[in-house]
Amino acid sequence: MAIWNSRFKKPLAEIALKFSSSIDIDGKLYNEDIDGSKAHVRMLAKQKIISLSESKKIIKALDGIRKKISSGKLKLDWRKEDIHSLIEERLVEKIGNVGKKLHTARSRNDQVALDERLYMRKEIKELIKLTRSIQKTFLEKAEQYKNTIIPGYTHLQRAQPLLFAHQLIAYISMLDRDVERLNDCMKRADKSPLGAAALAGTTLNTDRNLVAKFLGMNGIVENSLDAVSSRDVMIELISACSIIMMHLSRFSEEMVLWSSQEFGFADIDDSFATGSSLMPQKKNPDIAELVRGKVGRVYGSLFGLLTIMKALPLAYNRDMQEDKVHLLEAVNTTKDCLLLSSELLKHTNFRKNRFEKELDGDLSLATELVDYLVRKNVPFREAHHIVGKIVAVCWDQNKKLNEILLADYKKISSKFEQGVYKYLTARSCVENRKSSGSTSPKEVERQLHFWKKNLQ
Amino acid sequence: MAIWNSRFKKPLAEIALKFSSSIDIDGKLYNEDIDGSKAHVRMLAKQKIISLSESKKIIKALDGIRKKISSGKLKLDWRKEDIHSLIEERLVEKIGNVGKKLHTARSRNDQVALDERLYMRKEIKELIKLTRSIQKTFLEKAEQYKNTIIPGYTHLQRAQPLLFAHQLIAYISMLDRDVERLNDCMKRADKSPLGAAALAGTTLNTDRNLVAKFLGMNGIVENSLDAVSSRDVMIELISACSIIMMHLSRFSEEMVLWSSQEFGFADIDDSFATGSSLMPQKKNPDIAELVRGKVGRVYGSLFGLLTIMKALPLAYNRDMQEDKVHLLEAVNTTKDCLLLSSELLKHTNFRKNRFEKELDGDLSLATELVDYLVRKNVPFREAHHIVGKIVAVCWDQNKKLNEILLADYKKISSKFEQGVYKYLTARSCVENRKSSGSTSPKEVERQLHFWKKNLQ
Amino acid sequence: MAIWNSRFKKPLAEIALKFSSSIDIDGKLYNEDIDGSKAHVRMLAKQKIISLSESKKIIKALDGIRKKISSGKLKLDWRKEDIHSLIEERLVEKIGNVGKKLHTARSRNDQVALDERLYMRKEIKELIKLTRSIQKTFLEKAEQYKNTIIPGYTHLQRAQPLLFAHQLIAYISMLDRDVERLNDCMKRADKSPLGAAALAGTTLNTDRNLVAKFLGMNGIVENSLDAVSSRDVMIELISACSIIMMHLSRFSEEMVLWSSQEFGFADIDDSFATGSSLMPQKKNPDIAELVRGKVGRVYGSLFGLLTIMKALPLAYNRDMQEDKVHLLEAVNTTKDCLLLSSELLKHTNFRKNRFEKELDGDLSLATELVDYLVRKNVPFREAHHIVGKIVAVCWDQNKKLNEILLADYKKISSKFEQGVYKYLTARSCVENRKSSGSTSPKEVERQLHFWKKNLQ
Amino acid sequence: MAIWNSRFKKPLAEIALKFSSSIDIDGKLYNEDIDGSKAHVRMLAKQKIISLSESKKIIKALDGIRKKISSGKLKLDWRKEDIHSLIEERLVEKIGNVGKKLHTARSRNDQVALDERLYMRKEIKELIKLTRSIQKTFLEKAEQYKNTIIPGYTHLQRAQPLLFAHQLIAYISMLDRDVERLNDCMKRADKSPLGAAALAGTTLNTDRNLVAKFLGMNGIVENSLDAVSSRDVMIELISACSIIMMHLSRFSEEMVLWSSQEFGFADIDDSFATGSSLMPQKKNPDIAELVRGKVGRVYGSLFGLLTIMKALPLAYNRDMQEDKVHLLEAVNTTKDCLLLSSELLKHTNFRKNRFEKELDGDLSLATELVDYLVRKNVPFREAHHIVGKIVAVCWDQNKKLNEILLADYKKISSKFEQGVYKYLTARSCVENRKSSGSTSPKEVERQLHFWKKNLQ
Repeated sequence: MAIWNSRFKKPLAEIALKFSSSIDIDGKLYNEDIDGSKAHVRMLAKQKIISLSESKKIIKALDGIRKKISSGKLKLDWRKEDIHSLIEERLVEKIGNVGKKLHTARSRNDQVALDERLYMRKEIKELIKLTRSIQKTFLEKAEQYKNTIIPGYTHLQRAQPLLFAHQLIAYISMLDRDVERLNDCMKRADKSPLGAAALAGTTLNTDRNLVAKFLGMNGIVENSLDAVSSRDVMIELISACSIIMMHLSRFSEEMVLWSSQEFGFADIDDSFATGSSLMPQKKNPDIAELVRGKVGRVYGSLFGLLTIMKALPLAYNRDMQEDKVHLLEAVNTTKDCLLLSSELLKHTNFRKNRFEKELDGDLSLATELVDYLVRKNVPFREAHHIVGKIVAVCWDQNKKLNEILLADYKKISSKFEQGVYKYLTARSCVENRKSSGSTSPKEVERQLHFWKKNLQ
Repeated sequence: MAIWNSRFKKPLAEIALKFSSSIDIDGKLYNEDIDGSKAHVRMLAKQKIISLSESKKIIKALDGIRKKISSGKLKLDWRKEDIHSLIEERLVEKIGNVGKKLHTARSRNDQVALDERLYMRKEIKELIKLTRSIQKTFLEKAEQYKNTIIPGYTHLQRAQPLLFAHQLIAYISMLDRDVERLNDCMKRADKSPLGAAALAGTTLNTDRNLVAKFLGMNGIVENSLDAVSSRDVMIELISACSIIMMHLSRFSEEMVLWSSQEFGFADIDDSFATGSSLMPQKKNPDIAELVRGKVGRVYGSLFGLLTIMKALPLAYNRDMQEDKVHLLEAVNTTKDCLLLSSELLKHTNFRKNRFEKELDGDLSLATELVDYLVRKNVPFREAHHIVGKIVAVCWDQNKKLNEILLADYKKISSKFEQGVYKYLTARSCVENRKSSGSTSPKEVERQLHFWKKNLQ
Repeated sequence: MAIWNSRFKKPLAEIALKFSSSIDIDGKLYNEDIDGSKAHVRMLAKQKIISLSESKKIIKALDGIRKKISSGKLKLDWRKEDIHSLIEERLVEKIGNVGKKLHTARSRNDQVALDERLYMRKEIKELIKLTRSIQKTFLEKAEQYKNTIIPGYTHLQRAQPLLFAHQLIAYISMLDRDVERLNDCMKRADKSPLGAAALAGTTLNTDRNLVAKFLGMNGIVENSLDAVSSRDVMIELISACSIIMMHLSRFSEEMVLWSSQEFGFADIDDSFATGSSLMPQKKNPDIAELVRGKVGRVYGSLFGLLTIMKALPLAYNRDMQEDKVHLLEAVNTTKDCLLLSSELLKHTNFRKNRFEKELDGDLSLATELVDYLVRKNVPFREAHHIVGKIVAVCWDQNKKLNEILLADYKKISSKFEQGVYKYLTARSCVENRKSSGSTSPKEVERQLHFWKKNLQ
Repeated sequence: MAIWNSRFKKPLAEIALKFSSSIDIDGKLYNEDIDGSKAHVRMLAKQKIISLSESKKIIKALDGIRKKISSGKLKLDWRKEDIHSLIEERLVEKIGNVGKKLHTARSRNDQVALDERLYMRKEIKELIKLTRSIQKTFLEKAEQYKNTIIPGYTHLQRAQPLLFAHQLIAYISMLDRDVERLNDCMKRADKSPLGAAALAGTTLNTDRNLVAKFLGMNGIVENSLDAVSSRDVMIELISACSIIMMHLSRFSEEMVLWSSQEFGFADIDDSFATGSSLMPQKKNPDIAELVRGKVGRVYGSLFGLLTIMKALPLAYNRDMQEDKVHLLEAVNTTKDCLLLSSELLKHTNFRKNRFEKELDGDLSLATELVDYLVRKNVPFREAHHIVGKIVAVCWDQNKKLNEILLADYKKISSKFEQGVYKYLTARSCVENRKSSGSTSPKEVERQLHFWKKNLQ
């Protein structure tokens, strides 16, 4: 018999109970539920709404139930509707009438909102830890490859040479904003809605701030309707996860490209690649592909929750039970992908000499010629056009930039002199960068230093 | 050791295996996988690629494995990577070398595409059956309430009186297009990709059409690259599910409205409503709310798969392993919601007399006056303006249309005569409709008749 | 003054009018609106609801208004709220009282639903035409490159050699299902909702089927509530567009890859590529990238409309005014992308000799060895393991398959004989395929023949 | 001729130019583009890369171009590809060679990233202003209705009486988190990417921080690849807009409900409602419906951009040109909806006496009885069951709670005494709330006071 069933003349039909039971999902929050209940009961005792000895009995029994659940002895039976009902029923079975006081001055509406916020608080911390961890992996790899030159791409066309470390640091920077977003979200998540009761507050003499204090939360969600009706912080968190996944999908795409035969740059360790059931030669970058594919789950969760919350009138509506499906899917997928992307990167070797020689004299050094002319006071746009003509010659004659004779350079612009050739190696190109945050060894070193200090 | 592991020097790291294992999802397709393998083996024997006795041994063993799985004796261990590997390994354990012939001339790429299509075929049939079933429930209710008058709404404002049956039939019509879409999708789903092998076809003398024939499918997906790379039909199916859910969410919204105290029209049976953990008087339309909330899952699945498939180069990429998560989520949720919405409707009584009296003379009969004037050859737009003035009088004097004296009507337009009052009852309003598909009893009866014949 | 304003005491506030005015979008449907009105008026006359001469006057005036709009002489002023109001007002200005009869027996609810369906009918035809056209471009290119061998990829790893034509045909096949979906959608779109009036039908003696007949539509949307409330067919169309865009995004991704320096396969004509404002050497596959990026618009439109329709009660709600934004965005973007992708492909040369030599003896021929052994009755899985060992030798010794001595082959399996080497060229690999729809020249020729016949 | 066209042998095909031209969208950022260029030029002069007099000439000319654009004299011709090209070309036309120096040491990649960030900075401020403004409208209305009692709903069932002010304050609280999110986003948006050049930084002696300082930005996006490749902050902003729209859609839903005949609570001023083209009596809450519908656009934009950015390799890709479509759509729609929702609320009267009398003795006071018993030390769950029995009696006898005789109360529990009746009015129910943030007049007053202070 459901805990709410005081006036109904029939029990809920089995088919309806099964459909509406949420224990397969909210059962995963049993720890948060028990933590919340314990804090609630301590407050009730402090406020003399129940006696101290009653509160102690309840708390002890709740701890026992927690152990039973964690050890698997207390099954999360779907017939119990939800984790809140299951725990309250079990409590009453164990300690009788005293257990019936647990739910005093609260409703499942504020209870579940609290559980979700405690869960979000825990998971935001985990997400930050895992993001910090993959940032460190990027940093280690950047250290390891700080002299390795690769082609930088725009439009997947070779644009300008880069230090590979520079590209890896770009991901550290992106992920750093992800950590900022998680921290910002935490400020809003770490507040207690408990005590809002169903929607209007209670006539009993509760102390909402005390519950928040017991739980180490940084305040309460003041307005009782807001406390039970809102899920914006949850959407914000799934959105932050979606952005993390977007970043990881970009890195995954690069890993897939780099490990192709054509790019031939990345060599994934056998322990992080798989083969084909049919083709014996295959070695596939599956982990990167799966991360890239799992972005679909997290985006889907975001849209799922946005859909649910669209146009819902206040206060709690049962649609909102579905929020946890999307939250857990998003959080768990993102955590897995952060961890696995980090491990994948750790288990990948990059071929240091793959590109540098190929890039010496390459057309992707053309901008060096432009800057050369600009330094000789040729207006930029004109310099661009001059170099365009040289590029056209290279194309027509199938030559590299450093294979064009000075005489031919001079035919196109008299500004060119012998010294121009020293700008036409990949390494000089990288080394000559001057601007802050550029790919020059000095700037890369500075960035590495910064992150080493800041990712402790 | 993975089935593909012939040249790798290390096994897949446990963390990577766990991340990439898909057996928790594709394990649900074990029946389809075994059906496909049996047909494949029969073809191999027919084509003399393996011997008849070999094929019989394999088939018998596959049937045995199926029983073991369905009875729960063969556990779907995630270490086995996927259902295909698990079954092949088990087969070799059981019958030795002969089992090693099962995978001849195919790849997991075409195998999984086949499993998915067999699954879609089965589930499309189920979805159609369930849609037909809820259509019949709407029809029964329409029969039951064919004389009940309700306000029809636009903008949630009372617009014109309707027979309640007419509104229920609107849902039958919408759902009928859903069935059409499912049938259209079936044409494309029910084709066999098997024999495409990894992506290029095979050098062995297979007969792809024979496999399709054994499986009762209506042809093959010809081009081998298309066969293993495409997931458009799956997106189409999830899209069809999304539209069904959109329709159900609209009906759910109406159920929620109708069962509010303000509308006071629907009375859900106790066995399909729930209460509150705090407020003893509550009786909530939870089933309708949950259906409305679950639309988020199906929309989310649609966007999930669309995201995955965006910009994937041919042919198979591991990202596509994630397709089944979204497919199963969408299909199962939609099936549940069709069933539960139907049951909810069956278990709801509507208060036949809730509205009719209230609508007699109501402003929502204003269009009757317009038509009255139009029949007297007043140009429509002018008639609309005249009646607007009458409505304004009603508002100012807080009167119903049938409480305005004829003299006052005449002040506004001399066209009004005594006969006008007979148009000002809710029932006459409904009965006077003439157009096809309108809410008149005659037209509603005709629609009921049509659906009774067509939903057998 | 708005056409509906008969009883309001104040006009709509300017800010509200501006916000709610839809003429910037529905103004694009003026042709459909006028076509619908003309058919409506013809029916009214046929049914003697207005006189024949009245109908002629209205029709003539409507034709005049159409010309004024198409020539830009009649501005689509946002103050007129929507295209329906603008046309009706203009009509009354031109022909006085007779014009006030236009809106007899209809509402904007059924009128706009008709306009949208006429628009969808027109645009579905356009979409089919453009899809057929790009299919033909794929076909021409397939003809042109039917002897060109490329590596086929799975997981972006070289898997097995393919005829390039085969890959192009894969796209023809995908797009063919897109055409099927458009045709299926057409069956449901090409029905007239007109005559449903606001939601309940009308008391006037209209003939709904006659309007449908005048417009060449294949029937009516029977139930009047369904007719004005439903947007499922529109979602279906945007979903079909989303799938087309998904397909185009995959092709775009391949174009981007193929035109990279690393793949070095595609050479886009200068007239379909762009450069960099900074780097003179750049030649970017912008068109492909833009198509890939524009998938975001169409997916976004799909989710836009799904969001709008979620949980809307019947019948018309003003939210639905927003449907056209999404419909037009999706349709126009998809049409542009079909056209531009086709043009891009036309303007691209592929380097016929880029890959073949490189693939001779390549590890991507490993499956040839497996099939070789299978034909010698080695069980498939064993053959796979044997070849795996050979692949490992190649890796360790940095050799191609055709560089391993027969003696070494024999060390791994005695089944290998001199004849094995003839299977180790890219061309033999392709030519030896036997299965239906495989990449063998014979099968490719058969597919080409089929499509040549079917794409007339 | 395009600015990048130095080596191409043909101009871009007209059809391709039209497709790729972005000036219809990025033209709206001309102010930001010119601001950025001016700061860039000032820095170039300061760093002696160009001369002071050159910089002055350029700046003056840019100011002139700005005026021409804002006055409409300089048309944003789509043939000019984008706003950057148009302005640079115009500059060279005006001041010749000096103009060709404008683009020194930058690329369109960092230029557009800067424009977008300046745009976001401006619009975040606007969004905050508009959110503050609607919060104030909620506050005024809350003041106005602070004594009005309404039913609070859960599951759209009457749950417990509320002060209407309390419900309005709930929205102020939600919107306050929206402002927090916008402010958090601002921290990340207000950084300059300029100087990253194409992707690698420049060899010229620029000072990136100086540009940031000139623009009043709080720093630079350090890593040059990150600076040109990332769009996470833009997604974050659209996500923040989506959450605002979600909140507004909930309020809109309530406005639609409240203005229905059944709820009969809200009376929208004629200047913010519209009528029907057919039904003269209609007065529709169109503004609320449109806001609710427009949530589709913003959600759609969010998924549009998430789709675009999925799996894009670094650095800039042309797909990213599509970002602005989604950004502008989201920002403009959200601004409009904030403004219009505020105006709608201002122009709505609520019927103060609609509900209170109806709620006296109503079943939605049942929790009062539970608390009554709890205060008499009946365990909560038992109290809930006792009151459930009373509710059942009310249902069976069709009575209100205050119509049950004390004797009958006592039959169910001896704890009930005469004093119970004083808890059975709507007002006492509200007044007896004690908990922080509850709906009691005292707590509502406290919340009002807080917001009055904090929304100055």
